Amino acid sequence: MALELDRPDVVAEVKAAFLRYEKALVENDVTVLDELFWNDERVVRYGAGENLYGYRQIAAFRAQRPSKGLQRELHNTVITAHGDDLATAWTEFRRPGNPRIGRQSQVWARRPEGWRVVAAHVSFMEE
Amino acid sequence: MALELDRPDVVAEVKAAFLRYEKALVENDVTVLDELFWNDERVVRYGAGENLYGYRQIAAFRAQRPSKGLQRELHNTVITAHGDDLATAWTEFRRPGNPRIGRQSQVWARRPEGWRVVAAHVSFMEE
Repeated sequence: MALELDRPDVVAEVKAAFLRYEKALVENDVTVLDELFWNDERVVRYGAGENLYGYRQIAAFRAQRPSKGLQRELHNTVITAHGDDLATAWTEFRRPGNPRIGRQSQVWARRPEGWRVVAAHVSFMEE
Repeated sequence: MALELDRPDVVAEVKAAFLRYEKALVENDVTVLDELFWNDERVVRYGAGENLYGYRQIAAFRAQRPSKGLQRELHNTVITAHGDDLATAWTEFRRPGNPRIGRQSQVWARRPEGWRVVAAHVSFMEE
């Protein structure tokens, strides 16, 4: 039997987690950002300029990240839930005064501790 | 109950689909590439230079893609299965004679028709 798609309660939970992450990102709330990533060696995060493997590399990156210029607007966000416990959240973003189109991809999984980002990829589109 | 991680049979199935996709990519076997993407309006593919929404946009992009210079080597591939029907496949790649580090992220889901890429993101790391 195929995974049920876009159960409304699952989409609502993931959307809440996604927006909580977004708020923490623009406010550089490192505690919440760390909380929302899966605390596991298997988590991967490709950033615009770095490839990070495992929770510790991601936390170390956040700890030294500049805390200014983080404002951004999201566009064309697509959240799709697969079954009860997994969802993809793909979104474009733009920073004020910057013409570049950013893209942020997150895979969210329901873990015993809550919804967590288990894999992520951030980049800017090339012209 | 949390999703079981990395069931060996699930990982093996996804790895086979992932390698089939990789072979089709370097050989520009558009039929197989089209087959392995989810035929649904919700599929999203961010490429290095384009953001594609829905199966038709992705298929149209493939149809006009240059068919040369597609060789590449994969590095640091991480495939993680969540439950029976979902997996992430995050990998770095490099093209011969090109120093840039590519990153390809795919979310694979088991659909009634087989394992399909339901969301993808490809980019090059910035220096």
